[in-house]
Amino acid sequence: MTNTSISPRPPIVVIAPDSFKGSLTAEEVAAAIGAGIQAAIPGAQIRLRPIADGGEGTLDALMHAGGERLAIACRNAAGQLADCPVGILKDGSAVIESAAIVGLTDAAGIAVPVEQRSTLGVGDAMLKLLDRGARHFLVGLGGSSTNDGGAGLLSALGIKLYDAAGEAVPPLPSQLHKVTRIDASGIDARIKDAKIVAMSDVNNPLCGDEGATAVFGPQKGVTPEQVGVLDHSLAHFAAVLEKELGRSACGKPGAGAAGGLGYALLMLGAEFRSGAETVADHIDLDEALAGADWLITGEGRSDAQTLHGKAPFIASQRARRAGVPTTLLSGGIDRKSLGELQASFSGCFSIVFGPGTLQDAIADAPHLLRGSAEQIARLWQTAAGAKQ
Amino acid sequence: MTNTSISPRPPIVVIAPDSFKGSLTAEEVAAAIGAGIQAAIPGAQIRLRPIADGGEGTLDALMHAGGERLAIACRNAAGQLADCPVGILKDGSAVIESAAIVGLTDAAGIAVPVEQRSTLGVGDAMLKLLDRGARHFLVGLGGSSTNDGGAGLLSALGIKLYDAAGEAVPPLPSQLHKVTRIDASGIDARIKDAKIVAMSDVNNPLCGDEGATAVFGPQKGVTPEQVGVLDHSLAHFAAVLEKELGRSACGKPGAGAAGGLGYALLMLGAEFRSGAETVADHIDLDEALAGADWLITGEGRSDAQTLHGKAPFIASQRARRAGVPTTLLSGGIDRKSLGELQASFSGCFSIVFGPGTLQDAIADAPHLLRGSAEQIARLWQTAAGAKQ
Repeated sequence: MTNTSISPRPPIVVIAPDSFKGSLTAEEVAAAIGAGIQAAIPGAQIRLRPIADGGEGTLDALMHAGGERLAIACRNAAGQLADCPVGILKDGSAVIESAAIVGLTDAAGIAVPVEQRSTLGVGDAMLKLLDRGARHFLVGLGGSSTNDGGAGLLSALGIKLYDAAGEAVPPLPSQLHKVTRIDASGIDARIKDAKIVAMSDVNNPLCGDEGATAVFGPQKGVTPEQVGVLDHSLAHFAAVLEKELGRSACGKPGAGAAGGLGYALLMLGAEFRSGAETVADHIDLDEALAGADWLITGEGRSDAQTLHGKAPFIASQRARRAGVPTTLLSGGIDRKSLGELQASFSGCFSIVFGPGTLQDAIADAPHLLRGSAEQIARLWQTAAGAKQ
Repeated sequence: MTNTSISPRPPIVVIAPDSFKGSLTAEEVAAAIGAGIQAAIPGAQIRLRPIADGGEGTLDALMHAGGERLAIACRNAAGQLADCPVGILKDGSAVIESAAIVGLTDAAGIAVPVEQRSTLGVGDAMLKLLDRGARHFLVGLGGSSTNDGGAGLLSALGIKLYDAAGEAVPPLPSQLHKVTRIDASGIDARIKDAKIVAMSDVNNPLCGDEGATAVFGPQKGVTPEQVGVLDHSLAHFAAVLEKELGRSACGKPGAGAAGGLGYALLMLGAEFRSGAETVADHIDLDEALAGADWLITGEGRSDAQTLHGKAPFIASQRARRAGVPTTLLSGGIDRKSLGELQASFSGCFSIVFGPGTLQDAIADAPHLLRGSAEQIARLWQTAAGAKQ
């Protein structure tokens, strides 16, 4: 009965956190957790697999598995050229992270109001990657600052917009209502051969109450008064485009992702996949979980939304299939969602060690992560060694 | 190699936290932790042993083991009569918690400035307990608001203070410098037969740079200007008293506890013992730990001071001797002390789930305790079941 301390075999621990947005990249989070585990259990076998969900950090997570990282000149959301990171995976797939080109965190790109932002830069990236021979694209849609229905992307690829007077219309939300004719004949021919996977967890259609403008517009700066106008412009643009192309996508799930960039990709024949699932596949998470004893995942903040396809949840599902328990270690956890979160995690922990401000937690995040990971690892090792 | 989930025998868990000062009693803390463990591991055998260190909550912790709780009329620090809780343990020992009679948290008692507060009420309690036949006293010294060198206690017991004109001097810090003669002949005769154990972790002498006034005075309202004057008064009072009684104690460790109440008790022949050790003995903590798998302890806030005789540390030492690992679950933990704390605890955790204010944590403490206990128990059970 008495607990005699035996020495358990050091565990194999997979560390697969998402980034802590605004604080640390997924790779930094994973490294700090790994250091904490190693400090507590020196013999532990650590497998670092930082993850992402299609938004900010997706390129980094995918590149962690290897490949070539490139900086290419693309227009930001405001139309100015900037060097943007893209990647070529070992299997030749090209990775474009929309958040890294027209992202909400790009101060220069969001210096103009949302109705003047475009996704031209995403098209720039696609063209240059086509030039490099890429025909398979992984496009992360989360974290964009745009609401142009993907008109920018399509324009960059050679589709032309005209008004009633036959003048060219720039692909900006503020101008789309003027479009009366679209000429798709100039589209880059290589696009037809390309396979495009759009990484997104958004199921919204392009327009309407559940559309891009109404649901995601406000966080990009769309005012309540603008919602109706911009939503109507997108619907109008889509109607003209669909007439020209002879097919429809504006009602499809995901059309409303990234301010309608999802719609444009669907019109190009893109397949939609969960960002977290796609990343998990490409970083060989299942292989890392094979034979492992414990998965640690986390994110900046966890709540009931985490269970709706967020990366830590997807990781926990992969682990469950592999028979590996998962512990959640996040910056903060919504206490009221604990009951729901618990079903997927063997313990949900915050990195903080007591009351304090978010700013302090962010400033001290690497130490807090390392320290808290060390605590859960010490408890793990103690319990694993307890002869019950 | 693969982690196959086996079902470990439900653990026997001893839950022995201190109170979360200003928020929950040790008993409430223990109950909340117990509920969390039970939710995570329904078969767990829970042994609740709330603890204390001689300060606030000591009476509650001791009474948890059984005995009779009484309310008796004693003077508060300001000299007004109030019903104060004391206890008689099953072995007949009387328990007096100074914090419950002349405590810093008693608004009425601290309505007068520190130089007008006295420990008369502690003497009142002792007399009434002597009347009830008690001859063995456990006196908790932590948390007092007084700095009277125990002159109040001694006065209540029958010792008389006189000035040069032969007038009686009240036992107040502001008056002690006038004392020129002390008559101890009227002291209650039963005191000689009494065995007094003073529960304290303070080793300070009565006077000087390390004395009661200099070290503990400021937190009771002693101003920097008053320190020298009040310290000198205590030295003067002690010199007169020691001449009358023919023995000395002012340099002894613990004389400076509870504003010199420790000194007065030493002059009465009291033995000093660690509050946490004394409580641990009386609540049979060692018996509870026998055969147990896990001890959970905690306090409002833990830092390097915790390792200097605080109740959670004493509990962890008892557990270590019994071969039982200890986990610390506190309101907050000083992250910079983690390195030191870790040596005594298998995991140090805060009850909070993310950044936030102390006020919010205190308001939500029962839920946070229950929730965080559930998390560490879920992790424990997972690790115990992992076949490494």
